[in-house]
Amino acid sequence: MAIRAAVAGASGYAGGEVLRLLLAHPGVRIGALTGNSNAGQSLGALQPHLSPLADRVLEPTTADVLAGHDVVFLALPHGQSAAVAAELGDETLVVDCGADFRLADAAQWERFYGSPHAGTWPYGLPELPGAREALRGARRIAVPGCYPTAVSLALFPAYAAGLAEPEAVVVAASGTSGAGKAAKPHLLGSEVMGSMSPYGVGGGHRHTPEMIQNLSAVAGERVGVSFTPTLAPMPRGILATCSAKARPGVTAEAVRAAYEKAFEGEPFVRLLPAGQWPATGAVLGSNTALVQAVLDEDASRIVVVSAIDNLTKGTAGGAVQSMNLALGLPEDLGLPATGVAP
Amino acid sequence: MAIRAAVAGASGYAGGEVLRLLLAHPGVRIGALTGNSNAGQSLGALQPHLSPLADRVLEPTTADVLAGHDVVFLALPHGQSAAVAAELGDETLVVDCGADFRLADAAQWERFYGSPHAGTWPYGLPELPGAREALRGARRIAVPGCYPTAVSLALFPAYAAGLAEPEAVVVAASGTSGAGKAAKPHLLGSEVMGSMSPYGVGGGHRHTPEMIQNLSAVAGERVGVSFTPTLAPMPRGILATCSAKARPGVTAEAVRAAYEKAFEGEPFVRLLPAGQWPATGAVLGSNTALVQAVLDEDASRIVVVSAIDNLTKGTAGGAVQSMNLALGLPEDLGLPATGVAP
Amino acid sequence: MAIRAAVAGASGYAGGEVLRLLLAHPGVRIGALTGNSNAGQSLGALQPHLSPLADRVLEPTTADVLAGHDVVFLALPHGQSAAVAAELGDETLVVDCGADFRLADAAQWERFYGSPHAGTWPYGLPELPGAREALRGARRIAVPGCYPTAVSLALFPAYAAGLAEPEAVVVAASGTSGAGKAAKPHLLGSEVMGSMSPYGVGGGHRHTPEMIQNLSAVAGERVGVSFTPTLAPMPRGILATCSAKARPGVTAEAVRAAYEKAFEGEPFVRLLPAGQWPATGAVLGSNTALVQAVLDEDASRIVVVSAIDNLTKGTAGGAVQSMNLALGLPEDLGLPATGVAP
Amino acid sequence: MAIRAAVAGASGYAGGEVLRLLLAHPGVRIGALTGNSNAGQSLGALQPHLSPLADRVLEPTTADVLAGHDVVFLALPHGQSAAVAAELGDETLVVDCGADFRLADAAQWERFYGSPHAGTWPYGLPELPGAREALRGARRIAVPGCYPTAVSLALFPAYAAGLAEPEAVVVAASGTSGAGKAAKPHLLGSEVMGSMSPYGVGGGHRHTPEMIQNLSAVAGERVGVSFTPTLAPMPRGILATCSAKARPGVTAEAVRAAYEKAFEGEPFVRLLPAGQWPATGAVLGSNTALVQAVLDEDASRIVVVSAIDNLTKGTAGGAVQSMNLALGLPEDLGLPATGVAP
Repeated sequence: MAIRAAVAGASGYAGGEVLRLLLAHPGVRIGALTGNSNAGQSLGALQPHLSPLADRVLEPTTADVLAGHDVVFLALPHGQSAAVAAELGDETLVVDCGADFRLADAAQWERFYGSPHAGTWPYGLPELPGAREALRGARRIAVPGCYPTAVSLALFPAYAAGLAEPEAVVVAASGTSGAGKAAKPHLLGSEVMGSMSPYGVGGGHRHTPEMIQNLSAVAGERVGVSFTPTLAPMPRGILATCSAKARPGVTAEAVRAAYEKAFEGEPFVRLLPAGQWPATGAVLGSNTALVQAVLDEDASRIVVVSAIDNLTKGTAGGAVQSMNLALGLPEDLGLPATGVAP
Repeated sequence: MAIRAAVAGASGYAGGEVLRLLLAHPGVRIGALTGNSNAGQSLGALQPHLSPLADRVLEPTTADVLAGHDVVFLALPHGQSAAVAAELGDETLVVDCGADFRLADAAQWERFYGSPHAGTWPYGLPELPGAREALRGARRIAVPGCYPTAVSLALFPAYAAGLAEPEAVVVAASGTSGAGKAAKPHLLGSEVMGSMSPYGVGGGHRHTPEMIQNLSAVAGERVGVSFTPTLAPMPRGILATCSAKARPGVTAEAVRAAYEKAFEGEPFVRLLPAGQWPATGAVLGSNTALVQAVLDEDASRIVVVSAIDNLTKGTAGGAVQSMNLALGLPEDLGLPATGVAP
Repeated sequence: MAIRAAVAGASGYAGGEVLRLLLAHPGVRIGALTGNSNAGQSLGALQPHLSPLADRVLEPTTADVLAGHDVVFLALPHGQSAAVAAELGDETLVVDCGADFRLADAAQWERFYGSPHAGTWPYGLPELPGAREALRGARRIAVPGCYPTAVSLALFPAYAAGLAEPEAVVVAASGTSGAGKAAKPHLLGSEVMGSMSPYGVGGGHRHTPEMIQNLSAVAGERVGVSFTPTLAPMPRGILATCSAKARPGVTAEAVRAAYEKAFEGEPFVRLLPAGQWPATGAVLGSNTALVQAVLDEDASRIVVVSAIDNLTKGTAGGAVQSMNLALGLPEDLGLPATGVAP
Repeated sequence: MAIRAAVAGASGYAGGEVLRLLLAHPGVRIGALTGNSNAGQSLGALQPHLSPLADRVLEPTTADVLAGHDVVFLALPHGQSAAVAAELGDETLVVDCGADFRLADAAQWERFYGSPHAGTWPYGLPELPGAREALRGARRIAVPGCYPTAVSLALFPAYAAGLAEPEAVVVAASGTSGAGKAAKPHLLGSEVMGSMSPYGVGGGHRHTPEMIQNLSAVAGERVGVSFTPTLAPMPRGILATCSAKARPGVTAEAVRAAYEKAFEGEPFVRLLPAGQWPATGAVLGSNTALVQAVLDEDASRIVVVSAIDNLTKGTAGGAVQSMNLALGLPEDLGLPATGVAP
């Protein structure tokens, strides 16, 4: 009595990662795979790492093709999910890996995405206060952005415990798969290997309002975020270096205690022992987030670093984890907690 | 009624990969983990990607610690396996990831390894003619070298079908993990990133006699191998480019047919469709080998390229695949056939 | 009384490297820079590493723009050089970084390039027997392909000395810049980092007939070449592993002596001391080729490895070195013999 | 009448880069090269990219060997420079690439370096207000740390113009060569490729007090710095993302104007056109720093990103630039302003 899952956008990086995880999921049978420009091609040519699916052929992304599955994962360009989801009834769990249903504030949506707001779905970051409960039994899930996953996990414990001033500074390095599979000159291997570069500097990145939304909800007041993403010479991984001014009187012990409490029992977040720091290489292909937090007493700042795989915990792993919750399965079913290293 | 497995040399790259695979194996429970210089340390500090085992502490590598397990994986420096294995009775399956029991020819062993020959164990490359049968029920297994795995898979079908002259030329590129975790200046990231370099040129690499042994057995005559390994700027993966003079009258169709026949039904070797070529990136973390073969009619050579993950199919995956056979389990149980890409 | 140089195709990788070298050349003043789709853009946006030229604006690639310079470097797509060159008189030295004038055999040209043969110009690899003389005073120069540069330097001494059988096997790894700056999915950083892959396997690569031409000329008989190029996860560099059966009676000493003789006095080829092997990392940005050769006595093959920077010695450096010869300047004027390492 | 230069510590990364630059410097002749554990070895084996010096042999690092040169570059482990310099009279210009003479505050020195303070020398970052004047005619120069170079260039204009609050947050990514050539497990290629990781988090990095010193001097008040360095998977380059709260009323135009003014006429700092951001790949091997600055109006922060090559502008290039000033040569003599890209 397996769950039948379809993946729309199976030729991209997010769709490919959803498939990699579903192939290892004991409760799922893979149904329709769709693409647009790639419809009609076999998956073996598009995603050669998915050997067991090499002979599967992509169908066009239509509601007809996607209907009749227990779960549909949407890995589509922003703005395309609402129309597809509208045609799928509530008998289908729809998990949107895109941004369309992440933001509650329509004005922020329109400012950053330039299109009408489609709505808000339960947010697929179970570790956030209240999120797990909202995901249980949900029929629609908005998978968080990759950066907001890394940053929210890094900072929410400090805000939940009232330790930090409501202005955070985040600099995050991402592997190039975060920019997708469309061929653009600045993403060529020749350009990115051996080079670090920033983008969306000064508040322009679309993930900024999502971070603000998450942290503000936890803090109970508006938390501003100065966010600078950088492109790192690696295919996968996000290393988020986050800091905020400590509130007066905060001690190193209080910081440690807040993080221990926040992540106690979490299957996919590991607070490292004091003195050990996260590396993205340790979470490659894994749904685990590694986190470490300290108090810089000279600068009076709480400094937190988190590492995730942007495609796993940051996209497809978070999606499957949320699916497990929505369907009443064990939350960690079929999800890798180990990375591929070195 | 899980199989209890110990890993000797759990702090190294091969041992770490064995553990990564065993954690995903539904029939195995992980028992003792040993190290030498690292005994007493927790695995979390040494192998941070193995989150579920972070709190496990390494014990010293002694027969006492290893005894009483159903399977013991040895991931030790060359020359140390025989003494350990001698103290473990036949109730324990011993899978040696080192070189000690790979070569049948004592003179070749002594020439290339400079120490007395310890013996010969069933060879853990099930795809080779006759190998699978020898592994069923075996109590001792010699896991092949990583290069010989890639090269033997690439070339044995041509020799099995009598298509190639008995002189092969192999140039293979390996990720740096093949050189192990010992800190040596030429393996520093600063040195290897952005650089390709050869080593062991001119016949000196220890894996050469192992390739010759495998191919000669299939060919029924001595096959010479000119082997040049190169170090590539990537952590994992082997791309082996192999060629041999075609025997007179050999056609492109005959080459294709020989490879289709050799790999038919193999769970972990995928002969790619004509026109598609293997990339190591497609097998990262996977036990799959990708292979493609063509006839270069101008040069009258059969050219075959194979791609494996040196730590998975090339070491730990081959070890677990062989363990499955030895223990009568499904050969592919718990082993990933999909790579982590991009 | 500086030489005035124009560069056609200044927005690509070859054109950019020509400019980098010309900026450091004490006898050259940089004149017109042209592009096609990029005409009108400033170089600072297209080639941000060329800071001193950041404010220069690209003009369209026309004979009018290029006329009146002492030297014109053409870094254009294959097939476009002849038309441009025809409009530039003999008062202008034309150095073609493309393939159009490299092959003497029209049939081979048409087979591999699929267009009519444009002719043959003096070949810009001064180290080849006779080539330096032909370049002195030349008004037209065909810069060799990057792979043929690496392979010809590696193998011609063996053929010049009559040491090798006329069938060579070459496997070469190239950095991604060799594939150019056009955005193609398989060249994305996400795809190439951490991955090695072959292409043009089985004799199809366009550089194969160029290697055959060069080696055959030296050997005095047709030398066949089995050539497999591979794409390596690095921006620059070629490591060519080349071998050929040794003729009967050839000794290791004879091999060494042939290479010492061939490269004696060469400003840009360094035969390494015995035991040291080339790495592409040591020639990054340098016009130097590193070479090492040995005799594999077991396999009876001469094995030679060369390392070059595909954009420097393999393209733009070879072009400037040839320009120096053509203009009667010191051959090494303005050219870096040191690499940027690590 | 060339300047005779010696390099102490010629086998390391800093020493190697000094030599690469000196080889291209028209006014310098390279004298003694010294090492400690490597004394007696030829440079060709230790620094294979420095082909023109391949046959030079390292001498021991003693005052006798270094005496009699016009300039001595010290690229020694921290704490060793004072003793050597003390034996060289004022007839020799001593340029210390180490940290010993950078900090004016003895207490900070002792806190971060754990040894007695040796003194303070003119600081080799000519772009800082007042620094160029102090370097003219100097006989002793302290070359800045690589991170302080990138960060001071990024932030001093904001503080010089009184635009920023005195608390800066810096997250910088460095290539692995910044960690030196000593073989340590965490610096192995297998560990660093494909991985980003932080270190020295929470205020512990030794370069922190140097940044504070530089920015405070410009601001005229103490500027606190929260500094997090990260290790990036590339051999060279620093990308520093720096921000500070804007003072009330600061406009985007004021920020731009301050940076234009600060870098006007600087030969080795390029403020990019609005909308273009620095990439380390564009400064590989170059003495140029690329800088861009914006005002994030939502977060009320000035965000500045700078990119340098840690070994060139961040170490050896800054050293040679300062040497030029000290000796009365043109400041940019022999120094590359172009990077090696892609």
